[in-house]
Amino acid sequence: MSVAGPYLSFLSDFGNDTAPAVCRGVIWSILPDARINDLTHSGRQFGVRDGAFLLWSAVPYLPVGVHLAVVDPGVGTERRPVAIRAARGDYLVGPDNGLLVPAAERLGGIVAAHALENAALWHVTVSHTFHGRDLFAPVAARLAGGTPIGEVGPEIDPAGLVRLDLPRARAHEGGLDTTVLFVDAFGNCRLAGQPADLAALRDRLEPGDRFTLRIGGDILEVPWQPTFGAVEAGTVLLYEDADYAGLAVGVNLGSAAERLGLERDTPVRIEPA
Amino acid sequence: MSVAGPYLSFLSDFGNDTAPAVCRGVIWSILPDARINDLTHSGRQFGVRDGAFLLWSAVPYLPVGVHLAVVDPGVGTERRPVAIRAARGDYLVGPDNGLLVPAAERLGGIVAAHALENAALWHVTVSHTFHGRDLFAPVAARLAGGTPIGEVGPEIDPAGLVRLDLPRARAHEGGLDTTVLFVDAFGNCRLAGQPADLAALRDRLEPGDRFTLRIGGDILEVPWQPTFGAVEAGTVLLYEDADYAGLAVGVNLGSAAERLGLERDTPVRIEPA
Amino acid sequence: MSVAGPYLSFLSDFGNDTAPAVCRGVIWSILPDARINDLTHSGRQFGVRDGAFLLWSAVPYLPVGVHLAVVDPGVGTERRPVAIRAARGDYLVGPDNGLLVPAAERLGGIVAAHALENAALWHVTVSHTFHGRDLFAPVAARLAGGTPIGEVGPEIDPAGLVRLDLPRARAHEGGLDTTVLFVDAFGNCRLAGQPADLAALRDRLEPGDRFTLRIGGDILEVPWQPTFGAVEAGTVLLYEDADYAGLAVGVNLGSAAERLGLERDTPVRIEPA
Repeated sequence: MSVAGPYLSFLSDFGNDTAPAVCRGVIWSILPDARINDLTHSGRQFGVRDGAFLLWSAVPYLPVGVHLAVVDPGVGTERRPVAIRAARGDYLVGPDNGLLVPAAERLGGIVAAHALENAALWHVTVSHTFHGRDLFAPVAARLAGGTPIGEVGPEIDPAGLVRLDLPRARAHEGGLDTTVLFVDAFGNCRLAGQPADLAALRDRLEPGDRFTLRIGGDILEVPWQPTFGAVEAGTVLLYEDADYAGLAVGVNLGSAAERLGLERDTPVRIEPA
Repeated sequence: MSVAGPYLSFLSDFGNDTAPAVCRGVIWSILPDARINDLTHSGRQFGVRDGAFLLWSAVPYLPVGVHLAVVDPGVGTERRPVAIRAARGDYLVGPDNGLLVPAAERLGGIVAAHALENAALWHVTVSHTFHGRDLFAPVAARLAGGTPIGEVGPEIDPAGLVRLDLPRARAHEGGLDTTVLFVDAFGNCRLAGQPADLAALRDRLEPGDRFTLRIGGDILEVPWQPTFGAVEAGTVLLYEDADYAGLAVGVNLGSAAERLGLERDTPVRIEPA
Repeated sequence: MSVAGPYLSFLSDFGNDTAPAVCRGVIWSILPDARINDLTHSGRQFGVRDGAFLLWSAVPYLPVGVHLAVVDPGVGTERRPVAIRAARGDYLVGPDNGLLVPAAERLGGIVAAHALENAALWHVTVSHTFHGRDLFAPVAARLAGGTPIGEVGPEIDPAGLVRLDLPRARAHEGGLDTTVLFVDAFGNCRLAGQPADLAALRDRLEPGDRFTLRIGGDILEVPWQPTFGAVEAGTVLLYEDADYAGLAVGVNLGSAAERLGLERDTPVRIEPA
């Protein structure tokens, strides 16, 4: 028989300090049985888009629960703190700055959104600069513990939530114009677009098919392969990222970011070779 | 009904290796139900004062429990291993080098202190260089599991515990002489002193009040504001840190440490502008 | 009464991204009661030998359970995914590239090994590049939950498992030729060989005994001491590492790697001084 407590995930840009642990302490003070899964606290600081991407990537693999996400450069200003209920049954808690919406959509869409206004659910004092600890973590813990979302504050129109303008790939004159969405810890670069976009360029997409990458003034011919080890060590490849059919460029046993000088938002053009 | 096990927090300077996990393994071997909250293992190595500051900052937000802290440059020498009972009901376990005392005082003061001398509670063999694993973690797990503190070793006089000489702010000729206590993961710099010290310089302290910072030969005029977003991106501000009314200097969407060349112990003079 | 769930440890080279959390999410989706101990995810990327060394170092201090280890540069290629049962009662799950064998031997030896071929135990879809999430984590969770190892796939001959060729120390002309096995987070350098190898050079080994280190063209005389604090700050020492009687070179309050220019595989010759 399982005695597992409610499940929460937790993503922030707080880095290596004690801030994430302090928030976990607040959660465990309210909900001692909580299982807490730290998604990452080491992403780009103030990087709302990176946080949104990582949360979107992770949530399909997480148990139904409460997802606390705090990348919050506007802490203490007029930006709204919110809780969102997604169709799968999850709650997402964090600032209304675009961080939560892609993950909520991947969890089946937004069922309801509420502004956090009920201070009775918050820490007894609320600082101006650490709403993760004083406001978001307590509300996340209470939702995980069974407090109805209606108690956190008034319902708001989901259409009014802040949404990020994420880069998209565009087919253009026989090639695909894309950009680097995210660079992972190995230096693999996730690109906007999907394998179907490459397949559309040549009516097929098979392992070994070759493409030309144009990055700045540089031109490079690379194969489409299923995985790193299909090419020699140090060789660049295009592949399908493990996240939901996304395009990516990598290097076997190396870093594509370093090798090709790629960083977030670097434009990349892909053409059949 | 909660089935949550005893709560332990754990802070060290062990870094990214397996050392923290090995200590958690030891704790779970003794106390399988333990909930363990890693405060941080990434602070300044051998940085007893930084560890003491972080532990002091965190403990009010943690559940009552056992706080294991190992920043221990004297491991294996004559420095005493100790356990402290605080008035709130918590235990603190670690080396007697000043690391634990500020947190114990913030938890209501020291009720009792004991030297760890009962080797029956330790790992069956004790290395000379990893007392976190062989001595502190086992004792912390046993205290969390209900072993009375009297069993860890003889009671010692709390007045004899090593105490750190922490920097203090001093009002002097119409200004406040302070120093950087700690630089956080965002580059925000916590200063010695409190908002009341600034208020005393001008008989008030309101958002928008302006102060002159003197750092080395540099002079900079900055506002007092409640939070980062109250100033433009890249602008320096003085604000009240989220930890217990401390002064801090930050930069909206940036790093004050980088921008102003601040590091631990840099002198800063603040004057009304 | 304990309600602790099954114990898993988890080591990878995934770094600071969300990949470890995604794997924990998969484990908790299958086995909500699992206790998960992250050994480290920050080791050398693609560093099978470093991962094997860290896992070998940690396992004696971990509860009996399932040890999931994913340093897997060959992901998606023909390398076999495997599960190993060790004599102590633990399971080890990961790629057959040498990562698991030293830890299994330290846990009493290999009792059985199975190739992971039963896709019914995996994630419903399996990517080519993230077997940690799609294959290893699910199998580890199921073994921890009681699935018999026979269900993961066919038994294979343990003699056929890939084994690493680990560096060894060799006594030669009155000295010991060794190399740096691993550099830890403090810059301490673990060397191949044991204190008995040094004792054999002079028929004894006592604190204060002096040795000559030859590193590249540099020669340095250092003492054998039990711990860092036995020498002055900044002084180099030879000592017995806390892991199972291994030789190590360190610096009190400093980094031996930085001070002596040591890195993995640097040759070091030790002679009685």
